[in-house]
Amino acid sequence: MNKPLSAPVSAYARLEQRFRRLSALQEAAGVLHWDMAAVMPDGGRPARAEQLATLGVVCHEILTDPATGDLLDQAEAEAARLTDWQRANLAEMRRSHTHATALDSDLVEAMSKAATACEAVWREARPKADFAAVFPLLSEVLNLTRQAAAAKAEKLGCSPYEALMDQYEPGAREADIDRVFADYGAFLPEFLPRVLEHQARRGKPVEPKGPFPQAVQKQLAKRVMERLGFDFKHGRLDESHHPFCGGVPEDVRITTRYSEDQFVQALMGVIHETGHALYERNLPAEWRLQPVGVARGMVVHESQSLLMEMQAARSAQFCRHLSGLLRETFPGNDEALSPENLRLIYSRVEPGFIRVDADEVTYPAHIILRYQVEKALFRGDLQLADVPGVWNAEFKKLLGLDVPSDREGVLQDVHWYDGAFGYFPCYSLGAMTAAQLFDAACKAHPEIPAEIEQGKFANLQGWLKANVHRLGSSVTTPEIVTRATGRPLDVNVFKRHLERRYLS
Amino acid sequence: MNKPLSAPVSAYARLEQRFRRLSALQEAAGVLHWDMAAVMPDGGRPARAEQLATLGVVCHEILTDPATGDLLDQAEAEAARLTDWQRANLAEMRRSHTHATALDSDLVEAMSKAATACEAVWREARPKADFAAVFPLLSEVLNLTRQAAAAKAEKLGCSPYEALMDQYEPGAREADIDRVFADYGAFLPEFLPRVLEHQARRGKPVEPKGPFPQAVQKQLAKRVMERLGFDFKHGRLDESHHPFCGGVPEDVRITTRYSEDQFVQALMGVIHETGHALYERNLPAEWRLQPVGVARGMVVHESQSLLMEMQAARSAQFCRHLSGLLRETFPGNDEALSPENLRLIYSRVEPGFIRVDADEVTYPAHIILRYQVEKALFRGDLQLADVPGVWNAEFKKLLGLDVPSDREGVLQDVHWYDGAFGYFPCYSLGAMTAAQLFDAACKAHPEIPAEIEQGKFANLQGWLKANVHRLGSSVTTPEIVTRATGRPLDVNVFKRHLERRYLS
Repeated sequence: MNKPLSAPVSAYARLEQRFRRLSALQEAAGVLHWDMAAVMPDGGRPARAEQLATLGVVCHEILTDPATGDLLDQAEAEAARLTDWQRANLAEMRRSHTHATALDSDLVEAMSKAATACEAVWREARPKADFAAVFPLLSEVLNLTRQAAAAKAEKLGCSPYEALMDQYEPGAREADIDRVFADYGAFLPEFLPRVLEHQARRGKPVEPKGPFPQAVQKQLAKRVMERLGFDFKHGRLDESHHPFCGGVPEDVRITTRYSEDQFVQALMGVIHETGHALYERNLPAEWRLQPVGVARGMVVHESQSLLMEMQAARSAQFCRHLSGLLRETFPGNDEALSPENLRLIYSRVEPGFIRVDADEVTYPAHIILRYQVEKALFRGDLQLADVPGVWNAEFKKLLGLDVPSDREGVLQDVHWYDGAFGYFPCYSLGAMTAAQLFDAACKAHPEIPAEIEQGKFANLQGWLKANVHRLGSSVTTPEIVTRATGRPLDVNVFKRHLERRYLS
Repeated sequence: MNKPLSAPVSAYARLEQRFRRLSALQEAAGVLHWDMAAVMPDGGRPARAEQLATLGVVCHEILTDPATGDLLDQAEAEAARLTDWQRANLAEMRRSHTHATALDSDLVEAMSKAATACEAVWREARPKADFAAVFPLLSEVLNLTRQAAAAKAEKLGCSPYEALMDQYEPGAREADIDRVFADYGAFLPEFLPRVLEHQARRGKPVEPKGPFPQAVQKQLAKRVMERLGFDFKHGRLDESHHPFCGGVPEDVRITTRYSEDQFVQALMGVIHETGHALYERNLPAEWRLQPVGVARGMVVHESQSLLMEMQAARSAQFCRHLSGLLRETFPGNDEALSPENLRLIYSRVEPGFIRVDADEVTYPAHIILRYQVEKALFRGDLQLADVPGVWNAEFKKLLGLDVPSDREGVLQDVHWYDGAFGYFPCYSLGAMTAAQLFDAACKAHPEIPAEIEQGKFANLQGWLKANVHRLGSSVTTPEIVTRATGRPLDVNVFKRHLERRYLS
């Protein structure tokens, strides 16, 4: 008998090879995106667009190759032989394949063109508060997105809006979000006036006086990042117009934007991105370049940045630690840099119209509003023309403010005009998840708050690594939360956190 | 009659599409290489290696796809319908295809592994001057490279060594190089003693006293680059261990390495790389992402960097210009920064053992030696074991020096140990070509030397752009030289340049 030269390669193993190649190319594209945002001269834009488009086409071809579909069918038929992680990997491969194959290429191209055209008009319309000017283009974007959502919904077995959310937060369900947002939507109008009254009694913080030179801010930011656990052998800090976290797990690159007038926002922005970065850095190394090895979704991702920023860094404990560092870095600001004054600065609540400037108390109101609008648009319960009216009425209900114009209302975020529907809920679900994870970490290690006061994050990071980061995409977001905290997402933990921080 | 919905796409047009995709992916890889050398943290290395390897495999698959070969056959059969540039483009496509398909993948893999292993041992063997330690691995590299050279030679219809040179300088022929190098090899032993005697009479230059802060050097380098014609909207200057020119034509990125003890080398290195950059920047934009749109080969590329460095920047005229800039930048060094002293610094001749430290007079001796050794190795006239002996004897003949050990001899350059045979001749052919092109540019625009003294390079750049850069790969290197200067490469122009600079 002749022995075969090599064992037959299973369909699953061949899929791993395919997705390894796909992931490496996607990572290459990721580095090129970082470069474009952080260091590329303007003149490089057309060539870079061509490089990225070509990589996108090659990746799409790998994913939608009929052979990939055949291998998925075969591997699923043999799934009983796989380990849990392999099965989870296979499920993630299938999910990517479903998203990639659900839409025909004409629709994808039409969406891309419509979004580009709409975004360009939005840039003009926003400063003029001219919703009517962008309305026809946004209608077109919405119609195409509705087609895409319907096609994906059919394949995924969920509602059209859930199919859109699935692109960012796999498995997200309207019923779960409804419950959570209804709870907070009822809580806020009663809670907010108490917060504002308490804040008024505490008095206004002293503003630190600049200038705060960029090079000094950057050195400070790097020191803080190192304390949080960031390793500069495996990452960088740079500048870009919009702060973000890019790169790859072995080489995570975050960016920020400095203003020499103040350090407050840039520093907290760096801490926020560091939260994202540590998640990427601690993903399961043994599953690199496989779908199961990547971050679970945008809810968990936002939870990691918001845990670092909102739970850890804006705490009274960390303000005490920061005070020493800041006084060392920016002499002559002793009063403004006292622990108590920093706490006032970093826990200011101020209801306003602009989401990206919102504090953690009012932020969910902005999200709940957008979620309701998106959901109704994709259920067909709301016409696009009625969105500004609904927006303004809902805003009044949630935050008690009259929106002065669409510039401060429906025109403010680029997301919709760029064709991105279904992302917004991730922000607030992330904030609530962050509170619950931090609460559980502190229960497991009661010394964490005292350690944060000393600038020590090893126990917190260790807990997050073990309970969140190293799980990659092997289980769902609700399973991560339940395993780590003992129960599903519970808004009460977030509410208790807010009460402690803003009423005491 | 029905009109067809669209005209049939010609084989040639389909090849352009394929090579456009291939080129965009190669450019992506180029940016990733720049990133690795200039900004990537060490920890990113394994992930980057995987990204680059994957891009390499995808590019190789596009090129060696049987459909690419079929399209080439068809397009060549229809070549009469093409324009000159299209025909030249097709010829370059064929050349890439021939190189990519000449070797079977087992040989490519064996070469890659052998080179990696050999280079690692060379890093240890070089400081110990231990040629014997690396001999078996270099033998293996050489044997595999001989197989590759034979396979490519058969397809290209040239000698094995010419097939290796063709990878860097398409169409290079031993007979042409023999003639040029024999001429200079006869000239040098008579010329060099006269240069050294003349130099002794002029006396030694005063050394500028540092420190020269890196940030100040970088600002100076940028000012000089701008004067040479570099546009920072389309490029960058960064630092890396080995200076190089990377990026893409719309976004050319050069690097240098600073020492705070002296500015002399870093500044001239930046000027050298700027010469490479301006060539890339001025390649024919209408042929972007096509084989005919890229730089002709390494001889012309080296000619552009050496023209900028050796012909323009080390001239007495530019030293006068530089003197003003340098005195402004580094106060307190007036004597050392006088025009005449800078000229002495920048035209020092000092025969030595190390190629990369050599001046322009003795540099060709290093190259002639390596060329003779390479040629004999691939013709089979020389055994590897005999190389150190031949090296030392030839070195004595050319430069009159006794090589103290193989560390200063056969072990000094990484090229052979890394499997790169056939590159060395490009350096000196480039230097000679630079002299001839500069001479022709000054004949066409006699005001160029006076303009260089004022830091103005527009006429020189315009001439280079029209006569060299914008030709891309549409004609051969000898044709570029002949069209631009009225005759083929003529060593006498280089010799006259040296006589003027070093004997007057």
